[in-house]
Amino acid sequence: MHILITGAAGFLGQRLLHRLISRKELCGQPITHLTLVDQTQAAVPDAPDITIHNDAVDITAPNALDGVLDRKPDVIFHLAAVVSSAAEADLDLGMAVNFDATRALLEGCRTRRLNKTRLVMASSVAAYGGDLPDVLDDMTALQPQTSYGTQKAMCEFLINDYSRRGLIDGRVLRLPTIVIRPGRPNAAASSFASSILREPLNGEEAICPVPLDQALFVMSPDKVIEALVHGAEVQEEALGKFRAFILPGITTHVAEMLEALREVAGAEAVARVRHEPDARIEPLVASWPARFETAKANQLGFVGDRDFKQIIDAYVAEHR
Amino acid sequence: MHILITGAAGFLGQRLLHRLISRKELCGQPITHLTLVDQTQAAVPDAPDITIHNDAVDITAPNALDGVLDRKPDVIFHLAAVVSSAAEADLDLGMAVNFDATRALLEGCRTRRLNKTRLVMASSVAAYGGDLPDVLDDMTALQPQTSYGTQKAMCEFLINDYSRRGLIDGRVLRLPTIVIRPGRPNAAASSFASSILREPLNGEEAICPVPLDQALFVMSPDKVIEALVHGAEVQEEALGKFRAFILPGITTHVAEMLEALREVAGAEAVARVRHEPDARIEPLVASWPARFETAKANQLGFVGDRDFKQIIDAYVAEHR
Repeated sequence: MHILITGAAGFLGQRLLHRLISRKELCGQPITHLTLVDQTQAAVPDAPDITIHNDAVDITAPNALDGVLDRKPDVIFHLAAVVSSAAEADLDLGMAVNFDATRALLEGCRTRRLNKTRLVMASSVAAYGGDLPDVLDDMTALQPQTSYGTQKAMCEFLINDYSRRGLIDGRVLRLPTIVIRPGRPNAAASSFASSILREPLNGEEAICPVPLDQALFVMSPDKVIEALVHGAEVQEEALGKFRAFILPGITTHVAEMLEALREVAGAEAVARVRHEPDARIEPLVASWPARFETAKANQLGFVGDRDFKQIIDAYVAEHR
Repeated sequence: MHILITGAAGFLGQRLLHRLISRKELCGQPITHLTLVDQTQAAVPDAPDITIHNDAVDITAPNALDGVLDRKPDVIFHLAAVVSSAAEADLDLGMAVNFDATRALLEGCRTRRLNKTRLVMASSVAAYGGDLPDVLDDMTALQPQTSYGTQKAMCEFLINDYSRRGLIDGRVLRLPTIVIRPGRPNAAASSFASSILREPLNGEEAICPVPLDQALFVMSPDKVIEALVHGAEVQEEALGKFRAFILPGITTHVAEMLEALREVAGAEAVARVRHEPDARIEPLVASWPARFETAKANQLGFVGDRDFKQIIDAYVAEHR
């Protein structure tokens, strides 16, 4: 079993890498080779029984993935992407990384007849947008309102068509907002969703720019990684007529998140959250869909978090 | 008012050209220049007051549209495409013509800052697919089951994003099955829908490969041309958050089509239709969505045919 991870130096890539090394197998086969691709060399944990190729590659360069695909990976986790704000700031960069590199990856597999290779790609709840219904389901139209969402949606179609034609075996998982991310607050509009929990747990102040009743559709990093792994293991026959679908996040709202924080870390932690409405962030977050019926993912065996408290408990256990 | 038509030598391109020349104006401005683009030189009717450029261009060639876009068209009707069967037979050709050429057109407009140029593109009911509800609406997901539908859907997203960013003013119309097309029966699965009317009206036999109760979502050539013109004239502000939508076709079924044929041309015309179920065509046609709530198009002022008899009457009047 040879696995390729693009974006291997990133947050999800690193977590996935550790998970794969610790589970030692995928799809019932022992993992013998891992190929890691990112702009910079990915950090590599100790893995005595696995041959690891670690390639710093600009995936937007012509034929960048030739050498990597010549090794004929059985499973590809395609996580490399530029984030929403970067894709919005630079259309050409977003198209090159988020769309053209995915197309080149598909073409590279097609050229090498890797039609049994399972390609698991991360798409995003950002592919949704427009005049959405209160509760979305598997047949809700994608009407992305960002270039990032547009590029992800285009990749979904391309992967579906290449899969339908038998050129690759693709699976595209639309990820909910990931909470709790590690690190520091950043410019992303979603930054607060992790920050209002992470900073108070670390004894620091955080700013909440949205109302207490703001709903969010979230998934913990652990469940996302489990979903990626499961995405590789699902049988092709079960995937039906379209290869992309939303993962079973949970719907929560800010008040519930803070109540869970209080249960875990006490009222003094909640008191570290300052409420400062932000007219720039509020409408953006309000436009994100928060309620889904995830019938397809459920049927395929994907599992989300039980409740929001479990998400905090897992973070605390990991970072203690 | 300078108008560019790609695919100007095709069925819709030619009809649109005649319509524009006879109406002499678009968006309240006199038409002074027309640029026609196709693989071969388009036929050009007499139009004394209009300067017509007629360019045989391979739109898949690098920079193929540079000269054409240097003339800074105010409105572009982008109709050039390879059809469904050709895109299915040759993935590279379909991607080159249906997707890459559209992207190049958008980039050409962006480079020349043609951000006020109205781009009207023809998409298709073929962009829908998968496990569809009985009645589709403006928020039904696209899950195309052909490469043609995939490529059209990707163009929809790209045009929407370029419009959202203010780089172009795009409008994408998903066309119903066009009935009655002129010409002869061909290999397309939809060929019968025109053939079972056109041939009997001409005193010839036709074959109906699908059951009498097969439903279809159709629009006459005249109404499609009216919709393209209206697509250029709709105010940008009215288009909302997504630039692509289905046109208001009418839902009919084969028995109703033949009943309309009887009313117009008598029982002897209907008797010229032989019913020969075709196991290859039947499931294809059955998978096409036939019932839509076209709220967005209706609200924007697009108008479909009144009933099926009107479609036949118009064909007879034109070909008498």
